[in-house]
Amino acid sequence: MDPNELAKAFVEHYYSTFDTNRAGLGNLYQEGSMLTFEGIKTQGSQNIVAKLTSLPFQQCQHTITTTDCQPSGPAGGMIVVVSGHLQLAGEQHALKFGQVLKIF
Amino acid sequence: MDPNELAKAFVEHYYSTFDTNRAGLGNLYQEGSMLTFEGIKTQGSQNIVAKLTSLPFQQCQHTITTTDCQPSGPAGGMIVVVSGHLQLAGEQHALKFGQVLKIF
Repeated sequence: MDPNELAKAFVEHYYSTFDTNRAGLGNLYQEGSMLTFEGIKTQGSQNIVAKLTSLPFQQCQHTITTTDCQPSGPAGGMIVVVSGHLQLAGEQHALKFGQVLKIF
Repeated sequence: MDPNELAKAFVEHYYSTFDTNRAGLGNLYQEGSMLTFEGIKTQGSQNIVAKLTSLPFQQCQHTITTTDCQPSGPAGGMIVVVSGHLQLAGEQHALKFGQVLKIF
């Protein structure tokens, strides 16, 4: 599979899970995974899910604008850079967001 | 050295080189390095320098707003996420920019 298509499919799956079943994101992280969210670092699948499910909003809808990916280096994996909008329930204006994912 | 401090020092060096001697950025990339710039992928130190020195602006000044870093994974290295402003000579308003660097 083309790595760009793989990255796009992963990104779609990640944000659709985020928007519909946030706790399910735990399956997409490992024990060694780290999340940096607004400067705060959280490590491990369980801790990351606890962080993401405790964000101060419930219903949300991500819309992806760009997905760029490239190999992470000789050890394998891909770095995926995502930008888009985040619409929160009850808010008039969407927020811009950016996220970097290291996958595989 | 604290990895966060190391990342900040690298980022300062990278953008100060970008703003004063763009061709010198070649020393900061390797043959296997890849740059994705607005969706276009360029591989290898020489090709990356050619891409960066051919951007349609000469004098520029980067100002860094945030530098976030975390380990890239068990194989080592760090992923550094930078945001900031880019002031071009002769332009009234600065542009916002974001860049992701994999270092070491």
